[in-house]
Amino acid sequence: MTQPDIIISEVGPRDGLQSIARIMPTEAKTRWIRALAGAGLREIEVGSFVNPKRLPQMADTAGVVANAITLPGLSVIALVPNLVGAERAFAAGAHRVSMPVSVSESHSRQNINRSSEEAIAEVQAVAALRNSLPDAARRGVEVGLSTAFGCTIEGPVEEDRVIRLAVLAAEAGADSVGLSDTTGMGNPAQVRRLFTRLRSELGPKAGGAHLHNTRGQGLANVVAALDAGVTTFDSSLAGLGGCPYAPGATGNIVTEDLVFMLEASGLTTGIDIDRLVAARTILAEALPGEPLYGHVAEAGLPKGFRPAGGHA
Amino acid sequence: MTQPDIIISEVGPRDGLQSIARIMPTEAKTRWIRALAGAGLREIEVGSFVNPKRLPQMADTAGVVANAITLPGLSVIALVPNLVGAERAFAAGAHRVSMPVSVSESHSRQNINRSSEEAIAEVQAVAALRNSLPDAARRGVEVGLSTAFGCTIEGPVEEDRVIRLAVLAAEAGADSVGLSDTTGMGNPAQVRRLFTRLRSELGPKAGGAHLHNTRGQGLANVVAALDAGVTTFDSSLAGLGGCPYAPGATGNIVTEDLVFMLEASGLTTGIDIDRLVAARTILAEALPGEPLYGHVAEAGLPKGFRPAGGHA
Repeated sequence: MTQPDIIISEVGPRDGLQSIARIMPTEAKTRWIRALAGAGLREIEVGSFVNPKRLPQMADTAGVVANAITLPGLSVIALVPNLVGAERAFAAGAHRVSMPVSVSESHSRQNINRSSEEAIAEVQAVAALRNSLPDAARRGVEVGLSTAFGCTIEGPVEEDRVIRLAVLAAEAGADSVGLSDTTGMGNPAQVRRLFTRLRSELGPKAGGAHLHNTRGQGLANVVAALDAGVTTFDSSLAGLGGCPYAPGATGNIVTEDLVFMLEASGLTTGIDIDRLVAARTILAEALPGEPLYGHVAEAGLPKGFRPAGGHA
Repeated sequence: MTQPDIIISEVGPRDGLQSIARIMPTEAKTRWIRALAGAGLREIEVGSFVNPKRLPQMADTAGVVANAITLPGLSVIALVPNLVGAERAFAAGAHRVSMPVSVSESHSRQNINRSSEEAIAEVQAVAALRNSLPDAARRGVEVGLSTAFGCTIEGPVEEDRVIRLAVLAAEAGADSVGLSDTTGMGNPAQVRRLFTRLRSELGPKAGGAHLHNTRGQGLANVVAALDAGVTTFDSSLAGLGGCPYAPGATGNIVTEDLVFMLEASGLTTGIDIDRLVAARTILAEALPGEPLYGHVAEAGLPKGFRPAGGHA
């Protein structure tokens, strides 16, 4: 497999499923992840190692990881809030752990009952754990700075604080530090500015963009991030999850629409859009009645469409 | 009034209303246009002068224009397919006429039963009419090249042909020539490329962008067009009209979401988002049951939001 221009990191099985009340059966999760990998996804965040009493949707993550790591060429990521979660994730075989660190102090306290700085200390502990593993070179620790573009409690966040925490997370031993528009408050100018600074400060440790579509700015913000040199983007099949509002007001950006935009623009993703769209059937069957978003799935590909990767 | 950075040209009363089967009463159209002007819109395409048998929704356009031109500071635009329409539009008092010329020969024949070149000849006749008016300096002739980013019949269109027709339209006497993604097939790379060429070839006669959101690319394409220096954008309140697919798969880009993106990014529009969102009520009342799109109207403005223009 040649390296695509842009890496799409599918977060539906984690971010999508934890945002909805229903619990998807392990078997369906596994079929979905296989279908995504079959469509060409190279990275999937398959679940999270959190308290199963708090998020019962994620109680089977160890089993989901164990299955996903058998898929050739797939990087299997698990979200972990702390060292205990990271121990479970690495024991299950996850290639990488993703740790959220909130830029907003209020959001951090509300979400994990810790300050942002305490969350950075936890990153350091997880990085030390990873370094102690016999196959440390093949295990990754990623940080995603949540509320990096604004907080529903505090409002605007200081950009200097975002960059300072990114530097601290990198110094704590994270392999990469990305920025998350958790609240869908970001705009293209801000996205371009922050990712430009992130890349300038962190160099190769500058991570990807996790953007939401809450205010319809998802793909517009991707264009801005691409301009700033970002090459990894999180998204969710059918925009599953994170949709607190009416139809159309989704949370996560829609993988199908993102892949269409990139491939149409001449950027390869390694992903076959038709197979990606076909994978929605698994969601529709396993979560009947759950709203599935996405324009390309509804409108179809344009007549004569030629993706950069030459799949269609 | 200071000149805003970006001009939003609202096309809902024309493009929106002609795409839906119901006929909005003249009184409601007038209230809607007044509300839009009150929110700060400087340009509104209020209707079209076409055969009322074909588009009965537009039969009252002369009356709508006559009312709209009484609103101070508002540029009143009417779409006209030909010289007869332009005569009626100017007689009614329209400040500018907008003429569609299709880049795709098949689309042109299907829509107006003329070749693209014959449509250009009509532009020349309309420009001559305008020049003959006693107040010619205050009347405008604009061309929008439809299917400029792809055609549902022909598939991809040649970019050289787009630019050639743009030059012909400018030479025929149009004051400005814009590009329309009539079919929602455009992508950001293409939008950036074509508008860069348009501006390079046409200079001050390079017009605005009429982009659709059929495949979710609307605002992403706006970001690309902004990068290419475009300063005028068409959009429709609540994304009214042009929505051939399921909820969320709108036609026109949503004015509210566009204004939010621009103002959040530091670009002034002269528009008050709260008043714009409030104008949706007129649509909801006059067209009960008609789907109204838009993320910002659903999600609300972010906490602590500060628009570039300082309205909120």
